[in-house]
Amino acid sequence: MIDYSSAVREGAKAYLTRQYKVIAIYFAVVFVILALMAYYDYVVIFTPLAFLTGGFFSGLSGFIGMQIATRANVRTTNAARKSLNKGLRIAFSSGTVMGMVVVGLVLLHISIWYIVLNWYYGNFEVAERMVFITASLLTLEMGASSIALFARVGGGIFTKAADIGADLVGKIEHNVPEDDPRNPAVIADNVGDNVGDVAGMGADLYESYAGSLIATLALAIAAGLGIDGTVVPLGIAGAGVLASIVGVYLVRTGDRLSQAALLRALRKGVYGSAALVAVASYFIVRYALGAEHIGIFYCILVGLATGMVIGASTEYFTSHHYRPAKRVAEASRTGPATVVLSGISVGMLSTAVPVVTIGTAIMLSFIFSGGMANPQLGLYGIGVAAVGMLSTLGITLATDAYGPVADNAGGIAEATSQPPIVRKRTDAFDAIGNTTAATGKGFAIGSAALTTLALIAAYKEELSVVAAKFGRELVMDLSLMNPKIMVGLIIGGGIPFVFCALTNNSVAKAAHSIVMEVRRQFKSKLILKGKKKPDYERCVRIATKSAQKQMILPSLLAIVMPLAVGFLLGVEAVIGLLTGALVSGFALAVFMANAGGVWDNAKKWIEAGNLGGKGSDSHKASVVGDTIGDPFKDTSGPSLNILIKLMSMVSLVFAGFILLNSLV
Amino acid sequence: MIDYSSAVREGAKAYLTRQYKVIAIYFAVVFVILALMAYYDYVVIFTPLAFLTGGFFSGLSGFIGMQIATRANVRTTNAARKSLNKGLRIAFSSGTVMGMVVVGLVLLHISIWYIVLNWYYGNFEVAERMVFITASLLTLEMGASSIALFARVGGGIFTKAADIGADLVGKIEHNVPEDDPRNPAVIADNVGDNVGDVAGMGADLYESYAGSLIATLALAIAAGLGIDGTVVPLGIAGAGVLASIVGVYLVRTGDRLSQAALLRALRKGVYGSAALVAVASYFIVRYALGAEHIGIFYCILVGLATGMVIGASTEYFTSHHYRPAKRVAEASRTGPATVVLSGISVGMLSTAVPVVTIGTAIMLSFIFSGGMANPQLGLYGIGVAAVGMLSTLGITLATDAYGPVADNAGGIAEATSQPPIVRKRTDAFDAIGNTTAATGKGFAIGSAALTTLALIAAYKEELSVVAAKFGRELVMDLSLMNPKIMVGLIIGGGIPFVFCALTNNSVAKAAHSIVMEVRRQFKSKLILKGKKKPDYERCVRIATKSAQKQMILPSLLAIVMPLAVGFLLGVEAVIGLLTGALVSGFALAVFMANAGGVWDNAKKWIEAGNLGGKGSDSHKASVVGDTIGDPFKDTSGPSLNILIKLMSMVSLVFAGFILLNSLV
Repeated sequence: MIDYSSAVREGAKAYLTRQYKVIAIYFAVVFVILALMAYYDYVVIFTPLAFLTGGFFSGLSGFIGMQIATRANVRTTNAARKSLNKGLRIAFSSGTVMGMVVVGLVLLHISIWYIVLNWYYGNFEVAERMVFITASLLTLEMGASSIALFARVGGGIFTKAADIGADLVGKIEHNVPEDDPRNPAVIADNVGDNVGDVAGMGADLYESYAGSLIATLALAIAAGLGIDGTVVPLGIAGAGVLASIVGVYLVRTGDRLSQAALLRALRKGVYGSAALVAVASYFIVRYALGAEHIGIFYCILVGLATGMVIGASTEYFTSHHYRPAKRVAEASRTGPATVVLSGISVGMLSTAVPVVTIGTAIMLSFIFSGGMANPQLGLYGIGVAAVGMLSTLGITLATDAYGPVADNAGGIAEATSQPPIVRKRTDAFDAIGNTTAATGKGFAIGSAALTTLALIAAYKEELSVVAAKFGRELVMDLSLMNPKIMVGLIIGGGIPFVFCALTNNSVAKAAHSIVMEVRRQFKSKLILKGKKKPDYERCVRIATKSAQKQMILPSLLAIVMPLAVGFLLGVEAVIGLLTGALVSGFALAVFMANAGGVWDNAKKWIEAGNLGGKGSDSHKASVVGDTIGDPFKDTSGPSLNILIKLMSMVSLVFAGFILLNSLV
Repeated sequence: MIDYSSAVREGAKAYLTRQYKVIAIYFAVVFVILALMAYYDYVVIFTPLAFLTGGFFSGLSGFIGMQIATRANVRTTNAARKSLNKGLRIAFSSGTVMGMVVVGLVLLHISIWYIVLNWYYGNFEVAERMVFITASLLTLEMGASSIALFARVGGGIFTKAADIGADLVGKIEHNVPEDDPRNPAVIADNVGDNVGDVAGMGADLYESYAGSLIATLALAIAAGLGIDGTVVPLGIAGAGVLASIVGVYLVRTGDRLSQAALLRALRKGVYGSAALVAVASYFIVRYALGAEHIGIFYCILVGLATGMVIGASTEYFTSHHYRPAKRVAEASRTGPATVVLSGISVGMLSTAVPVVTIGTAIMLSFIFSGGMANPQLGLYGIGVAAVGMLSTLGITLATDAYGPVADNAGGIAEATSQPPIVRKRTDAFDAIGNTTAATGKGFAIGSAALTTLALIAAYKEELSVVAAKFGRELVMDLSLMNPKIMVGLIIGGGIPFVFCALTNNSVAKAAHSIVMEVRRQFKSKLILKGKKKPDYERCVRIATKSAQKQMILPSLLAIVMPLAVGFLLGVEAVIGLLTGALVSGFALAVFMANAGGVWDNAKKWIEAGNLGGKGSDSHKASVVGDTIGDPFKDTSGPSLNILIKLMSMVSLVFAGFILLNSLV
């Protein structure tokens, strides 16, 4: 067990090291550009540095999370040998540590910058000082988003390429079972789970959490709430950390093998934390902003409720305890085509709840915060709702990160031939992990919609600030009847589709190179007979190289498109572009994540012995659905929320440059 | 041959009769509602009648088209026995008749209303008179759109359910070849081609053509161009009819079996017509609006060019002469999952060209028409571009409708055991038909984007008219920062996804009932041995009933959503909703149509003998892709453009009612 897991750990480290090298080049280039822009006064002086630290801390979150996960999985397998409860506690507590690290790093990082900037700009008056501070913080978020996108896309390509590659040659061509140590890609597959699902998710949620906070800080300043307005999001975040810690202690289960009991245990923790945050935030709002702004408190409640509704809807559409997954499974009787079609239908139908929920959340938080009288306050309220939604991230991330740990623990149990009861226990964790992972993605996507709206509003504010600075008159027509807005909307609506096409293609190309390598190694009969150890490292190296190469094009889209549109058509078109990408990207992300989730669980349900079980024709058909769903739910889908935010961040940071240099 | 084709004709008639009965109920209900609204003065007096005639003529277009097609296919088979050129001429000329009928009926219908209304409102001054006229014409379009949506959705469900049902039991379970007369669903399958692809398309393009004209008429009035402004779109449409007739005579081919030659012949006709329209429209604009508005002429050129670019891009992404289709075919070597993934990638990537092209078209036509100085003129220019794009509809529809005729001719050749050369010739027609059908869909989707924008602009104008009439002050904030707009956008962005989920589900349910019936009939061994004639009619009846039932829910979405959002959140949210549906629906429609097209052609390429040809594992994998693509390209995808227009029409017609009765 120790050998196996250390091979995985080595592989994951090798991947991240290489990934950080590629990213270093990107950061160096952007740093120089930002430094030049700072020199010409397009951006404030701290911008280049903030960009670097943002990237550093986001990457660090992913790295630490992965360190924990790669150590926890073997300990989970070991604990599962003793009892279900012990295994759960290990898997869950490693998730908890990761959750706490992410939220802790975000708060620490923002606080340090806040203090430093506050001191540096000390002799400006408060309003102006806050403008400088938020401008720097926004660049920090651009760094974090960049890392998150690279990590999600690169990691997602790696994990799915290794997974598909291992399965196609191993399972299908040579009838070698999953996780079998004879398969040269088996370590790469496990490495993938760590670099994609753990490190990618860590960086992603760091970015989401920081993004909602920083956007709300910026809107607090724009709304004229001053420092008091910034205390609220930071205060809620702090309360969320404490509430999450309490929530962690609420997670406990008996030693029955019931998934329902496991899920109930996790849910008790999440709901308990949410209730605590709700109570605490009442006092925070009351103290920081006074009774007149108590509506802001309702915005927090709206955010918390939104997260829960989207989470519950995700669970309904993907978990095999409900009709949709069963119906997808039943479609497998008539072959792969009907499985795929029914999964696509479930995914598309599942967009209904999140769009209506987020729509309602926008409207309610705008009204509650007093937006009808003062629209700036309304936008701030939307930001606060996003912060509220993510306030319990400590514990939701714990339940989320627990998934890959449990998954890997199962893999280790299989690869090291543990008694069946151990595998049964880790399987129980894993099935729950699928649902909590889907729920976590729902949170990430839902909060991204609110955060992106807040960022677009912040972009508009930033344009006014920049225009004032350069003595430009800024007349913006953000009406839907403005052709620039229309053009931006239409083109923006296409970007998520093109992005997903590129990431899907990347997975296909990377998987192809793994397939070739595994086939090459299997030519040696000794490896197939288990008499010679396969060259695991080569597969890891190939997947790493391929993922690094393939992640560049889709990531560039996020940076090039807002700049190109801004340069050609001006800032109004950029606002249209960002909104269009949000509108279609949000629905597309929900569709892809849930279609992927429901295919996976339909397959699992069949594997549990339904409709003929493993090896039946139904099972084969369901595997096709699952394979298609893999890049949907682990590569393209979860990258979309970062894509739309990074596009917004790039627009924000380059606002001044575009405003002064665009063709129109 | 005659027996077979008359059975198909009977089935198609039976379907349409039943469909029109269901639709009659819908029309009766809406007629009463409109009559009540007219009584309470929410809409002008002619509204209920215009709604009826709009529906009638749209349905008539589909019906006549189908009559022609069901007669032409057997004649095409017969002519193909003599020579390739003769077969082509029959198939193409039947398409031509259909094209001419559609454009002729639209122009006739609009002209009659124009004359009647002009006479009735004769004692109002011109400006006011035109407002009444356009209000009535817009309701006409709502009737046409309703019929088109029912025809596309219902016909699409029928054709794909019959197709999938026939294949699943016949080809896969009992190894009966396609189009074999022993299969009880074979007639239903052929009926489906006629009611879905021909009648559905006829109603669809009637609606598109009328929609672009009427929206532009409304915008001409809003821009203060008066009657002169309405002469331009009608004049271009008239010139387009003449140009199409000339174009038809340009289509001629030798007797080589080369697809390239066939495609070249068709293309010569399309491009020739476009050139003629371009020349004619210069004089129309010059004469009607004078030299100062010559920019409107450039808008027409923009529209023509846009259609060609989107057409060429569709061809590139779907035809098996280019890389994408070949790459999808090659992905079949590694099984169905990779075929599906690569098809999805191609479809998603293919959205890039249309979104950028339409974006460019919007910007250019806005600028050329003088929108920078007078935005109303700019919106009119966008409408004119849509009219320009559809001006050659006579001939593009001819090339488009020719597809199903050729397809059916092939089916008849197979079912009646004609010599191989005949089948080879009809196959050559069919392969081209796939490409021209995809191009036709590209036109429909592209023009829908422009038309919907024009309709949204017309909606805004209608609101001002209605507000003035009821003495209401109308202050609209259409800014992206207005939360109602945001909510509308987000919810609107989800609607196309939910709509596609519903239509896909409908196909699955209807296919299931066909499968059950075919299985039941195959229990009699006599049918399988060919000694007893299967009960074809029962399959047709079941498919008909099932399609009628299943088409209701998705169609209601188009009507209920704008009314519900308008009632709850007011007219600004409706404008957001329409825009959101356009933004995500446009990209989604292109994705689905092209993914479906590329899967179909990848399969055809393999069937032509590549990668192992028919019966190989690659072929089986490609069939999975094709089956998934069927509802994509023939049910959900082509309905989306009608959906977004019908939503706009419903909003327009109920503008007064919602404005006075909404909760906010």
